[in-house]
Amino acid sequence: MHPLLANRMEEMKASEIRELLKLTEQPDMISFAGGLPDADLFPVERIAAVRERIMKEQAKEALQYSVTEGYLPLREQIAARMNLHQGTAITAREVLITNGSQQGLDLTGKLFLNEGDVVLCESPTYLGALNAFRGYRPKFVEVDTDEDGMKLEHLDELLQTHPVKLIYVNPNFQNPTGRCWSKERRQAFIDRVQRANVIVVEDDPYGELWFEAGERPTLFSMDRKGCVIYLGSFSKIFCPGYRTGWLIAGSPWMEKYVLAKQAVDLHSSTIGQREISCYLEQYPIEEHIVQLRTVYRQRRDAMLEALNVHMPPDVRFTKPQGGMFVWVELPEGENARDLLVRCLPLKVAFVPGGAFYPNGGNEHTLRLNYSVTKETQIREGIKRLAQVIGNERTRRRA
Amino acid sequence: MHPLLANRMEEMKASEIRELLKLTEQPDMISFAGGLPDADLFPVERIAAVRERIMKEQAKEALQYSVTEGYLPLREQIAARMNLHQGTAITAREVLITNGSQQGLDLTGKLFLNEGDVVLCESPTYLGALNAFRGYRPKFVEVDTDEDGMKLEHLDELLQTHPVKLIYVNPNFQNPTGRCWSKERRQAFIDRVQRANVIVVEDDPYGELWFEAGERPTLFSMDRKGCVIYLGSFSKIFCPGYRTGWLIAGSPWMEKYVLAKQAVDLHSSTIGQREISCYLEQYPIEEHIVQLRTVYRQRRDAMLEALNVHMPPDVRFTKPQGGMFVWVELPEGENARDLLVRCLPLKVAFVPGGAFYPNGGNEHTLRLNYSVTKETQIREGIKRLAQVIGNERTRRRA
Repeated sequence: MHPLLANRMEEMKASEIRELLKLTEQPDMISFAGGLPDADLFPVERIAAVRERIMKEQAKEALQYSVTEGYLPLREQIAARMNLHQGTAITAREVLITNGSQQGLDLTGKLFLNEGDVVLCESPTYLGALNAFRGYRPKFVEVDTDEDGMKLEHLDELLQTHPVKLIYVNPNFQNPTGRCWSKERRQAFIDRVQRANVIVVEDDPYGELWFEAGERPTLFSMDRKGCVIYLGSFSKIFCPGYRTGWLIAGSPWMEKYVLAKQAVDLHSSTIGQREISCYLEQYPIEEHIVQLRTVYRQRRDAMLEALNVHMPPDVRFTKPQGGMFVWVELPEGENARDLLVRCLPLKVAFVPGGAFYPNGGNEHTLRLNYSVTKETQIREGIKRLAQVIGNERTRRRA
Repeated sequence: MHPLLANRMEEMKASEIRELLKLTEQPDMISFAGGLPDADLFPVERIAAVRERIMKEQAKEALQYSVTEGYLPLREQIAARMNLHQGTAITAREVLITNGSQQGLDLTGKLFLNEGDVVLCESPTYLGALNAFRGYRPKFVEVDTDEDGMKLEHLDELLQTHPVKLIYVNPNFQNPTGRCWSKERRQAFIDRVQRANVIVVEDDPYGELWFEAGERPTLFSMDRKGCVIYLGSFSKIFCPGYRTGWLIAGSPWMEKYVLAKQAVDLHSSTIGQREISCYLEQYPIEEHIVQLRTVYRQRRDAMLEALNVHMPPDVRFTKPQGGMFVWVELPEGENARDLLVRCLPLKVAFVPGGAFYPNGGNEHTLRLNYSVTKETQIREGIKRLAQVIGNERTRRRA
């Protein structure tokens, strides 16, 4: 590394997902590699109307500097939605507008992480969170997971054996596995972490994209001790191009987050915040979210059905009840990176799962996204993927 | 400090400017405290037209995720403007879109600063840069300045006696002093830093807002060794509400900046970037900048004239040839914080200068902004300020 660079830059490496996205941007590629919402579903006409209104009624304010905390009416709307959905009683004072939840992750690293601090995370976990935290050089320790969330015995063991500073979790339709923590597991988790002296970061971009069983209670809503910091985002339920998310935290953290955000970029886009706020005021965003649920559910169904039909019986996969991802486990010893190389000529792509484990390994896993691909293409893509898996096995036996 | 917070949070304190701005937001206040462009000058009609066009022609792309580096046509436009104005030969590859130049400062800290690294800066210097860098816990060493820029003898001495990692400068119409480095000083500075093994950050939000003598050559354009990283912004020459700026750096730094930006917020607002790019394509932004120069020059003239008329002869002030600020030095021993407290009841405000010195002191200085105040108000405000200074002296003599 160049001697002028700071030590922390040793941890920053090119993200496999982002590099792969470049490779898979050919138009005839069936790509399960991304994590994008479907742009065909963006409420373009309503957004256009809102944008016109902003320019007519508040152009000067919308184009000017504004406060670090964010646009007050938007913070109030976010607090009101959270209270309505989750039975909480927060106010705008506890809401900070961020540049997507990714900035919430970076600011959280800034606030809490000294070099060498222990961060617990699900195994596997969201790659973007690892990237955000890595700049602060923590030690990642992975907690075993099952269909219902973090395994409590392993969590207990790690809390006893490690000086844990922060726990990062993604309980609703996780990226990358699509799994959703059970209500019992959430309660047991909260009981434990409230007794420990730790910060919990609940990253929840997918919570409203449920297909069955309605919205789940967030850890934030169960927390009585102020140890959970909640990250939300308009990227998956509205449009990611705005780069607008939010962070919910109580005192004394919020004051520190505001100082950190001010040092980092003064504030988020005034005009973007006002557009979203005006949209929320003028249209029921629930209408849009219902449509997303309907379409994504159909795509999930198509993917699970195709996986059932085409995959060999020793290939396991999750059955997500919401969100955007299915997680696939090949038998141990098979390698998803090699598989991807063989898939690209057949014009099908996915993300190998190894990158979602901060301490490596697990090269037999892979992540499939279904939110941007139409059902016929999903079926065709899964068929091709299964075919490459089959060919690969034949080749290795030969 | 709370034991869960990271050590770096010790350095993050509430910014005096931001806190003061809250106090001075009463409508009858004549505030010289801000640093805003005048919202009455925003090209609202043209922006409205551009926004409509974006929604008609490219809504889906504008509302979707995009690449970390930024929107390619905008990066090309920025490179072309830089080459036209400064005789450089950069390409879009050397341009990264940031959330205002403030994010360029934070990312620069992330890339280069280990705890304890020595950062040289002008004395006084831009408070926002101090805030951005402070999170990385460097040691700030101030370089003496005069009307022409950093004093070379002091710079030489510090380069010999300190292991300098980074030099932060604001050569054009500096915030807070309004001073502009002479061409000779720029060349001598570049000769020196190219021999030293240091990074130079040239922060240039005001370079195009010259009133006399045209655009100055940037340090970046004089640099032949790739040691200067250049920060630009649309906040002062267009509209700050977009939070859109840029960073220009060569290899090997750019690749690292992209990784750091990706970890921090994935990318800047897609829709904001496309709006600005479309504006640059459709309208000559120079027309807008010419108007800013005309209006701000008249306001500068009004402020200097009023200072000449009303201030006691022992109060010194700069005569800026561009930008937004006049810097005032009271005789040593007088205190601008106390003065501000006495000014507020008379409805006139400014920023005490002490905060612009990273190592404190210099409480006899203050910063005046003239970009958002009409001439009659400027005259009235300076008159009131001089009156309070006079009263204060009478009171102390009594």
